[in-house]
Amino acid sequence: MRAEIITIGDELLIGQVVDTNSAWLGQMLNKYNIKIHRINSISDNREEIFSQLTDCLQRSELIIITGGLGPTKDDITKNTLVDYFKMGWRVDEQVMNQLLEFYKSRGRTMFEVNKMQAHLPDGCTTLINEWGTAPGMWFDVDGKVVISMPGVPYEMKNIFELKALPLLSKKFQQAKLYHKTIVTINVPESILAKNIEEIEDNLPAHIKLAYLPNWNMVRLRLTGTQQGDRDIETEVNAIADRICLIVGEDVVATEDLSLAEIVFKALSARNKTLSIAESCTGGYISHQITLLPGASRVFVGSVISYSNSVKHHQLGVENTLFETVGAVSEQVVEQMVQGVRERLQTDYAIAVSGIAGPGGGSEDKPVGTVVIGVCSATETIVKKYHFIGDRMNVIGRAGNMAFDMLRRMI
Amino acid sequence: MRAEIITIGDELLIGQVVDTNSAWLGQMLNKYNIKIHRINSISDNREEIFSQLTDCLQRSELIIITGGLGPTKDDITKNTLVDYFKMGWRVDEQVMNQLLEFYKSRGRTMFEVNKMQAHLPDGCTTLINEWGTAPGMWFDVDGKVVISMPGVPYEMKNIFELKALPLLSKKFQQAKLYHKTIVTINVPESILAKNIEEIEDNLPAHIKLAYLPNWNMVRLRLTGTQQGDRDIETEVNAIADRICLIVGEDVVATEDLSLAEIVFKALSARNKTLSIAESCTGGYISHQITLLPGASRVFVGSVISYSNSVKHHQLGVENTLFETVGAVSEQVVEQMVQGVRERLQTDYAIAVSGIAGPGGGSEDKPVGTVVIGVCSATETIVKKYHFIGDRMNVIGRAGNMAFDMLRRMI
Repeated sequence: MRAEIITIGDELLIGQVVDTNSAWLGQMLNKYNIKIHRINSISDNREEIFSQLTDCLQRSELIIITGGLGPTKDDITKNTLVDYFKMGWRVDEQVMNQLLEFYKSRGRTMFEVNKMQAHLPDGCTTLINEWGTAPGMWFDVDGKVVISMPGVPYEMKNIFELKALPLLSKKFQQAKLYHKTIVTINVPESILAKNIEEIEDNLPAHIKLAYLPNWNMVRLRLTGTQQGDRDIETEVNAIADRICLIVGEDVVATEDLSLAEIVFKALSARNKTLSIAESCTGGYISHQITLLPGASRVFVGSVISYSNSVKHHQLGVENTLFETVGAVSEQVVEQMVQGVRERLQTDYAIAVSGIAGPGGGSEDKPVGTVVIGVCSATETIVKKYHFIGDRMNVIGRAGNMAFDMLRRMI
Repeated sequence: MRAEIITIGDELLIGQVVDTNSAWLGQMLNKYNIKIHRINSISDNREEIFSQLTDCLQRSELIIITGGLGPTKDDITKNTLVDYFKMGWRVDEQVMNQLLEFYKSRGRTMFEVNKMQAHLPDGCTTLINEWGTAPGMWFDVDGKVVISMPGVPYEMKNIFELKALPLLSKKFQQAKLYHKTIVTINVPESILAKNIEEIEDNLPAHIKLAYLPNWNMVRLRLTGTQQGDRDIETEVNAIADRICLIVGEDVVATEDLSLAEIVFKALSARNKTLSIAESCTGGYISHQITLLPGASRVFVGSVISYSNSVKHHQLGVENTLFETVGAVSEQVVEQMVQGVRERLQTDYAIAVSGIAGPGGGSEDKPVGTVVIGVCSATETIVKKYHFIGDRMNVIGRAGNMAFDMLRRMI
């Protein structure tokens, strides 16, 4: 079965908003073995919507539309769908009651434009929006399905997961697909490919391998399609095992996890705690850990020591070091990592100091120079790296390497 | 002129990677008055690439392709383009020399598969990749242009900005377009629309207004197209001024800035410093500030006090408060914000404590309850909020509100 996504909104085309909805929808549908064949981002424009919808309905069975359902005049998706499907209008009483309740509970006035959110095409099934005022819509079109949802990510996710997916899995039943991801670190894509060339060349036609490089990591994704009675999971896992044997300790996970998740799981399983001292990464590493629900089980806290004064007063780094070896040095990072572990009283600690750029580099410490330290009660490891890329790249790579150093220590 | 983007890669379709390239390209082209009409994300599949390219060349003059240029077998874009355009192969000596240098300087072995990166279609202009091994390619096709670049974001950006854009601005000259963004906070989209209804209803046909809501903010984007000799900038700015008058102090900026940038600019202009104490936001607010180049001019450091022990020892919060009023309370946040300002010796400070969810809520402090404080030497303001949405939503909204509270204080 072919599925496509249409995202509607000029803000996507001029780059004011990054489309995260499509990736999320791709992941969700993938779990239910529905593959997205194309993602089409178009303008809030009636002719574009008509033409795109016609193309999609010709080649696909499921079309998911996001965006353009707000109460304002630039949002034209609902009106355009009514015209496209040549439908009339109805007032959805459930939505209207929900709207009345929504505005009453917030003490806000309900305008005519808000009431219009309960006016829906008379041929669609309503997909209730629990977190906003624009409901989703489900259209059955000659055995095909068109779903329209608002573009606000958390509203869309709520509608899709709770309202659309149950209907979808009833309507479409798919051949089984199985994904296995192997996360590797520090091995360039081409060397990985060379090392596992024999395995890749001999893959059966129903199993595919993809390389996804990002910030010093490469994720290898094996995808198998069920063939008759053979157990696709066992078959794919056997290939994954052979790849892991070859790649060795540079494999950091055999499921699709971030390094923050891997470290969190490892610490959590051992009942160990973590503190962090961040300079150039400026809170990014702590943010990655605290994005994980339940982070407080392992994460105690951090000191973001952007200035040398904070490195000295809050972490105990000797002031003389800033003049002799500089803040981006093994000596300073060693004192940072030990300082934060002692003061925040944790089992493990991470510390990072570097030059993220674009300014601040020098000949012997160019932009991208980052010193990373990890420690436990008995051991401290400090290493110097040189990362390439822009400011966010240097920060992201430093974060990944810091988590990897801690992973190896644990 | 019509322009389109084609992003190639299964990882985008199954949601393993979010497409940030398209938004960036949209922004860049927009500055040069080239409008992206569609973004098409397709699979690493020869037939899909052929069919998409044919569609795009029928309706657009500029097609920008990203992805599928890696050295591994799942990357098929280059071979497919050679076949599509019926070209032969050539070895690009400059790229080959660059590759030899690249591998030599890193002490890595250069495999046959790496050398293939210097084999290019004989009808394309090479766009040198300074940060990676896959060069970009420029194809002239009957007056239209097809550009192919690798999908790794920082490599793509480098190629596009330094190599492709200069050629593009020579080749295409566009009617002038002018964007003006007004950033507002705390006013729901529908109330904004109601308040500025008269202005919106009377916009001339060549000026458009869009609403972009995100995390308690709405950005209003006015876009004007040059008409004859009239000065489009003056015309759009006059409308923007009228909108600002109506929206009043809930306008946080009249250019497309994040709240972190607005606060950074305000502090920087006044030579003032900032420290932050974060609990539930876990480093996110500090990360937003330190993403900005030159952050060290205003940002001194933070204490991420995830545990109560860190709130007590590093910020001086009284231990008895955790039992009497709890960590998510006005009293604790008041001591956090004053504690971090005093200890890190800054002019201003921000502090946040709350329940980001999904767990940890209670009847009187449900998930989404967040207390935010800001202070200077003479003033402390603490407020309690209730945010809706998932964990990242609560964190992001808390960040925006914290920056807004500080902005109003400054």
